[in-house]
Amino acid sequence: MLMNTHEARLDALRKELKARGLDGFVIPISDEHMSEYVGSYAQRLHWLTGFGGSAGSAAVLADRAAVFVDGRYTIQVRDQVDGRLFEHQSSLVTSAGAWLAQHAGEGARIGFDPWLHGRPWAEQTRTALEAQGAELVPVDGNPIDAIWSDQPAPSPAPAVVHNSILAGQASEAKRSAVAEWLAAKGLDAAVVSALDSVAWLLNIRGADVDRTPVALSFVLAHADGTAELFIAEEKVTPDLRAHLGNAVTIRPREAFVPQLQALAGKKVAVDPDRTVQAVFAALSGAGATIVELTDPTIMPKAIKNSAEQAGQRASQARDGAAVARFLHWLSVEAPQGGQDELSAAARLQAFRAESPELRDLSFDTISAAGPNGAQCHYKVSEETNRKIDPASVYLVDSGGQYADGTTDITRTVWIGTADGLGAPSAEHKDRFTRVLKGHIALAMAQFPKGTVGAQLDTLARMHLWAVGLDYAHGTGHGVGSFLSVHEGPQRIGKLLGGQAGTATELATGMILSNEPGYYKEGEYGIRIENLVLVERREAPGQEGEYFGFENLTWVPIDRTLVDTGLMTRDELRWWDDYHARVEAILAPQLDGAALDWLKAACAPLPAF
Amino acid sequence: MLMNTHEARLDALRKELKARGLDGFVIPISDEHMSEYVGSYAQRLHWLTGFGGSAGSAAVLADRAAVFVDGRYTIQVRDQVDGRLFEHQSSLVTSAGAWLAQHAGEGARIGFDPWLHGRPWAEQTRTALEAQGAELVPVDGNPIDAIWSDQPAPSPAPAVVHNSILAGQASEAKRSAVAEWLAAKGLDAAVVSALDSVAWLLNIRGADVDRTPVALSFVLAHADGTAELFIAEEKVTPDLRAHLGNAVTIRPREAFVPQLQALAGKKVAVDPDRTVQAVFAALSGAGATIVELTDPTIMPKAIKNSAEQAGQRASQARDGAAVARFLHWLSVEAPQGGQDELSAAARLQAFRAESPELRDLSFDTISAAGPNGAQCHYKVSEETNRKIDPASVYLVDSGGQYADGTTDITRTVWIGTADGLGAPSAEHKDRFTRVLKGHIALAMAQFPKGTVGAQLDTLARMHLWAVGLDYAHGTGHGVGSFLSVHEGPQRIGKLLGGQAGTATELATGMILSNEPGYYKEGEYGIRIENLVLVERREAPGQEGEYFGFENLTWVPIDRTLVDTGLMTRDELRWWDDYHARVEAILAPQLDGAALDWLKAACAPLPAF
Repeated sequence: MLMNTHEARLDALRKELKARGLDGFVIPISDEHMSEYVGSYAQRLHWLTGFGGSAGSAAVLADRAAVFVDGRYTIQVRDQVDGRLFEHQSSLVTSAGAWLAQHAGEGARIGFDPWLHGRPWAEQTRTALEAQGAELVPVDGNPIDAIWSDQPAPSPAPAVVHNSILAGQASEAKRSAVAEWLAAKGLDAAVVSALDSVAWLLNIRGADVDRTPVALSFVLAHADGTAELFIAEEKVTPDLRAHLGNAVTIRPREAFVPQLQALAGKKVAVDPDRTVQAVFAALSGAGATIVELTDPTIMPKAIKNSAEQAGQRASQARDGAAVARFLHWLSVEAPQGGQDELSAAARLQAFRAESPELRDLSFDTISAAGPNGAQCHYKVSEETNRKIDPASVYLVDSGGQYADGTTDITRTVWIGTADGLGAPSAEHKDRFTRVLKGHIALAMAQFPKGTVGAQLDTLARMHLWAVGLDYAHGTGHGVGSFLSVHEGPQRIGKLLGGQAGTATELATGMILSNEPGYYKEGEYGIRIENLVLVERREAPGQEGEYFGFENLTWVPIDRTLVDTGLMTRDELRWWDDYHARVEAILAPQLDGAALDWLKAACAPLPAF
Repeated sequence: MLMNTHEARLDALRKELKARGLDGFVIPISDEHMSEYVGSYAQRLHWLTGFGGSAGSAAVLADRAAVFVDGRYTIQVRDQVDGRLFEHQSSLVTSAGAWLAQHAGEGARIGFDPWLHGRPWAEQTRTALEAQGAELVPVDGNPIDAIWSDQPAPSPAPAVVHNSILAGQASEAKRSAVAEWLAAKGLDAAVVSALDSVAWLLNIRGADVDRTPVALSFVLAHADGTAELFIAEEKVTPDLRAHLGNAVTIRPREAFVPQLQALAGKKVAVDPDRTVQAVFAALSGAGATIVELTDPTIMPKAIKNSAEQAGQRASQARDGAAVARFLHWLSVEAPQGGQDELSAAARLQAFRAESPELRDLSFDTISAAGPNGAQCHYKVSEETNRKIDPASVYLVDSGGQYADGTTDITRTVWIGTADGLGAPSAEHKDRFTRVLKGHIALAMAQFPKGTVGAQLDTLARMHLWAVGLDYAHGTGHGVGSFLSVHEGPQRIGKLLGGQAGTATELATGMILSNEPGYYKEGEYGIRIENLVLVERREAPGQEGEYFGFENLTWVPIDRTLVDTGLMTRDELRWWDDYHARVEAILAPQLDGAALDWLKAACAPLPAF
């Protein structure tokens, strides 16, 4: 009997484990930098199981195996992963570690790749296994790499210089700040392991991870302001060398561990949430003193300087014109029928690509027709592609990477009919207007210094809560400057919503998304997303320091879906002011029918 | 040269310490139960230093001494504590422990009374002292008690039976629930040390602490449902004995430590936040295994059963009529001049005392005229007593203890003038209306199961924040059933506001205050407070479990101070609905001029 692909791969892995004296192994979606998105070379879970989601893991024993995913992927895992090979487990109910502890048996040796897991994971899993008499063993070389014959090589793309005028600060100044931080704490060096932290610190970018302009590399930053960059030699161009200068030593990636070991006797800052276990092992094995601290680039990276703020405004104006052209095109074409999610996403990408400044999309466009919109992490593919029906709700969440800024915008529109008669239902308008009211409440919020995202999240949800509705995702995430579209540490979300950052104080210069939504399973999804910038507010009579949000994203919101009877005078005023600004910013970039569409879309709402 | 009173007392304490071989001593405001309010016998800080505030501590060394208070008491400590005897320190900047560590010197032996401090305090202070080569030593008997010749004896008031119909659950059932909890955790006993926990568990009340109907006593609850009550024999009446029955062994207070020691070899639950260090020392000294867990009565005490809810509604209706009579009286008398904070507080107490059900006030009435209202913890005394001027703002925060419920209400009113011409300023009305809008937003909130107080707090502040204003206290605290007017664990407040409970999930049956305010230093204070009850909401189309607030407090809010132009239609509707209910509940209890006043106060607001 022939084995299918995944059966053969699982079989090969078991043989490899046996050859290494291991009884089991854990397979996460991760890379050496604990990245949110990983390169194709690191898609080991997908290769082994067929699972294509962005979060999950698997555990393999000699006689059984399981795949662990959260609620977002319950349906997808059933479609993609053969249940006869891998039991389907909910990661919220059972972790891979707990499952292994339950099934491994006394004396079992369970392997893990210390370059793919953080220290807290390793410690928890070790404890769980030891309680059952089993052992957690770091492997030397990933066993899947040993059997994955056509594994892609890590991307060879060159690292490129990020313009320091756009960055607003030279790498030297950034490294000096890290050096002062080290000196103040009496430390010798810091490990910078997160790819966007390396990129920010050295003002370099790359093309090694989909949709995120980073280069695979590590940095050791020293207390004297010098640094060592560990990077594949093929990525190093003469330009890069000239940019980095003498104070940054470029070393091959293989030199990273030896240089960590050379820190014997030194005090080294390592961020336990952003650094793999192997780094800890190398340092402590060599006799370095590890001090666990948050990566010192996280806060300055999150707080955009004036050049980054200016770049964000410019990229948003440019990106908004592309999205407006798309929405105009959609308003003409979609009511005729004949468009689908893929064709619409391609058309939107083409509008963005008309700008020579576009470097990449900032994530795969979520182009979701009707019921597909109700999956808030929907990813369109040839298999799921759905027609955009006249008289339906269409949701599009997308963004661009520009050298001066990263954008992220969601609009939800009513697709009309060719005869102009198909109108949204009262429910569509009620739900859309409640999402809109939440968006406006957050956009208009003013709040004292010291406020955290969990305190503001309620503003975006309260009008849905009032009728017993909610949305099962956060309200706002940070965004990088020509970097990750999801950037920490700040976040607007429920305090106990399970996501880090909702208790982080907001600071002026931080960028956040404002994206409440509502999702009706099997019918439609609604989300309205702009980016905003935390700004200082000064007004006569004010007591203490207050912050508010400068709006960054300027694209019309669909008035067809608004029930003005639900809106207050203040909300109607926000709408009109917002659309007057949209018109002022976009009109100079549009002409012809698109300009006419823009003007109609930006006219004041009729008062109730 | 004659010594003054506090100089003599400090001198006597230093001699007593020297005689005991101690170099220093710490004096908190606390009792053996870590109570928020303590009996007069435990007011050792006041006796030693003259400080009369409700939070603070002192530290005494041979050659210097200091008193530590927070920002609320900066002015008061200057007035009351001789700075030549005690340095005035901010407790937010320097703790007593840190100050002692800095000044005690190597080899110093610093005493503390283990019956007045929690374990976390003792551990932190011990660590701080040891780092400087000093030592923290538990004393055997408080040295102040040894020199305080006219120290009041602990209250001899009898403990009384709390009607189990009003309690809604017999003590036996409560003890069974604790026994099940112990059994599920494999434990033998629980120490119940907080006075309101003892009162709740055994359905007893007392009169040993001002304004809180509790009896000084400890409980050991056992896994078989039996309990031991440690209480001064003079407090035990035949009624109490009959009520407690055979399953509760009554022992003298002195038997508490021996019975703790008798738990050698047992597993005992102790709440580290609610139990003094001496209990930990007795248990661990005897060889018991201590398991640190939250007092098992905290959550069932916070979640009111239907009898407690009914009692709360009845006591609020009764209490509201007394407050309404007072507000009517005030509206007639105060514009003539001649009233002051003390006379008003006395009149309010007299109106409450007209009910035979009143047992006590639930706290000392905050009766604050004009600028005194700007001190949010203001306590009127003969020294601070201020005239209630015509054409001014007056704030009154008060409550009653009834056998069926504890009340807590704040109203802020405009005191008119005899000629009827003096009117509040636009600023008065703007600030009052913003506080009101916050109160209404919280009152109307609906929210999903799992929501915590920090997520709702913003609703009460957002309209003040919008103009750069705020208030420096929490928005809502729990309230007991004929118990403490401040009861945990839930709280509505800022996440990082420094108060516990803002991350506790709200549950149906919890009572909370809703009390936003605004305070303009030197001018006036505004606060609007009702109590509310968390209730389940059910509506067609609702997705998931939702909660909201049932309103409990029914007294008119002063319409003179409202700017209706700032209010939305929904807020005006809330006002009219609220006052229609107020009239329906209070009218049957009032007559004559007070009834006429009520009807005018409850008429619909004119729409804008």
